[in-house]
Amino acid sequence: MENIQIIGRGKYIPKTEINNKFLANKFDCDEERILELSGIEKRFFAQEETMEEMAYEASLNAIKNANLNKENIDMIIVATTSATKIMPGISFFLQKMLDIKNCMCLDILGGCSGYINAFDIARNYIVLNKVNTALIVGVESLSKIIDDKDFSTAILLGDGAGATIISKTNEKKIYTSNIRSQGQGSDLLTYEYGSKLNMQGKKIYKYAVKEVTEIIKETLKKAELDISDITTVVLHQSNQRIMDAISARLDCKNKFYTNIKEVGNTFCASIPIALSEINLQKGEKIMLVGYGGGLNSGCIILEY
Amino acid sequence: MENIQIIGRGKYIPKTEINNKFLANKFDCDEERILELSGIEKRFFAQEETMEEMAYEASLNAIKNANLNKENIDMIIVATTSATKIMPGISFFLQKMLDIKNCMCLDILGGCSGYINAFDIARNYIVLNKVNTALIVGVESLSKIIDDKDFSTAILLGDGAGATIISKTNEKKIYTSNIRSQGQGSDLLTYEYGSKLNMQGKKIYKYAVKEVTEIIKETLKKAELDISDITTVVLHQSNQRIMDAISARLDCKNKFYTNIKEVGNTFCASIPIALSEINLQKGEKIMLVGYGGGLNSGCIILEY
Repeated sequence: MENIQIIGRGKYIPKTEINNKFLANKFDCDEERILELSGIEKRFFAQEETMEEMAYEASLNAIKNANLNKENIDMIIVATTSATKIMPGISFFLQKMLDIKNCMCLDILGGCSGYINAFDIARNYIVLNKVNTALIVGVESLSKIIDDKDFSTAILLGDGAGATIISKTNEKKIYTSNIRSQGQGSDLLTYEYGSKLNMQGKKIYKYAVKEVTEIIKETLKKAELDISDITTVVLHQSNQRIMDAISARLDCKNKFYTNIKEVGNTFCASIPIALSEINLQKGEKIMLVGYGGGLNSGCIILEY
Repeated sequence: MENIQIIGRGKYIPKTEINNKFLANKFDCDEERILELSGIEKRFFAQEETMEEMAYEASLNAIKNANLNKENIDMIIVATTSATKIMPGISFFLQKMLDIKNCMCLDILGGCSGYINAFDIARNYIVLNKVNTALIVGVESLSKIIDDKDFSTAILLGDGAGATIISKTNEKKIYTSNIRSQGQGSDLLTYEYGSKLNMQGKKIYKYAVKEVTEIIKETLKKAELDISDITTVVLHQSNQRIMDAISARLDCKNKFYTNIKEVGNTFCASIPIALSEINLQKGEKIMLVGYGGGLNSGCIILEY
């Protein structure tokens, strides 16, 4: 069986900055209160960029980072929760924009944690020797689906895209994944066409802290590793308070990379954007953790 | 590496029948002309059923057909092109409706051929020993997105759901898949939220006949089989004329199962609905072939 390695990482953050002052004016509240509740100072809205354009720019950056001939990409998977193009999905537009001839394309709806699903699916195709190099993209235009009257989500969400390229390697690399769903909580975080995004924040907080702590522990056990073996945990950047509660339970705050202060919560784009910002050394063991609407959660431990 | 087998098949066809007489009146044309152009006598619209309900009924039938304890299902994948629920996807609602506790859920946007992607993804999880039993569902409510003024698509499309259950087996079973995309043709068959389904019929016809003939030949070669080894070809039921052109090129019309006359073209649901209607014997080699919007096409040869 083949092994995989991450060979390229990229992101695209849209141009229009939405700071807390703007939101404080809009909701007639205190700027500091927004930071305190969310840990976020600013987020960015795609007002000039389409979802395909954001996905394309993030992909170009990842391809450049990988120093890769784009023709070598033979799989494109896109994860999103705010798609408007249902057929074809964004992955097919990416194939066209990147001008890649031989490729398998696919879009994934797996809630905020969809990037983890996409990564694991791509990895399966590589280890089964059906694909050599996969481009995995998380992209969101949440600004279009935010309920303008809902302060609690409006302060959290931003737009953007992150891209990761993984490829077959002959080196032995550890990889363990653990993905599971709880459709019983399907009403806690929803977006249906014609309506707006709806999130039951308190219930999501409770679910996230418990579920994510558990899935991280289980995945470590499955990998026969201890949290001390992991150099960096890239958690879905949902809300600083959720991330703090999880890292406190695992007693490893120093391992949690966060960028939520700078970009907000970008759902499927949050992990690949964060991943693209980290300085990683070959051989490091890192952890990617997604959770959110579905409910759906997933944890991947891999060797960089 | 593990092998997979199909253990259950089911379908759900909605209650409201739309016959050619109805469409002939609507478009002020001849009833016989509709049959001649499409090979379709009737299709069904989901006027009383939601997409989740159709997916649920088809799944129940497949579970019954498999004589399976539903708790054994540990993966649910849904393929669709007419989703309105973007987060969570239909698979998560299915988990809730079926009351399955431990499960991985996922929705796929892969155009009309999405069921083939879903099947192949599920198979990867099983052969890698991460999943034991997967429920794969194709479901569409195309009646909601048909352009009422577009005669050429309005006569073709219907609603419905098909479900297939695959499971790990210790028996040696052949399996070969071949999936590929041509995003360069992403504008030939599109559905974007807020607009209606748009199909460039002549170009799709030309693409489908050439591409499907090629991908079938390639997959047979990859599997080291001849078309004479295959007992039944379950082709996406797009249009009788496309299917006739393909079977003529492969000289195997007698192997092509068709039900388009009775249910129309149901995009992602068409292969699993057709598959559920066929009398299959253990050990038979069958072929599943999808194609359509994306552009995306896929061929699977497997031993029943």
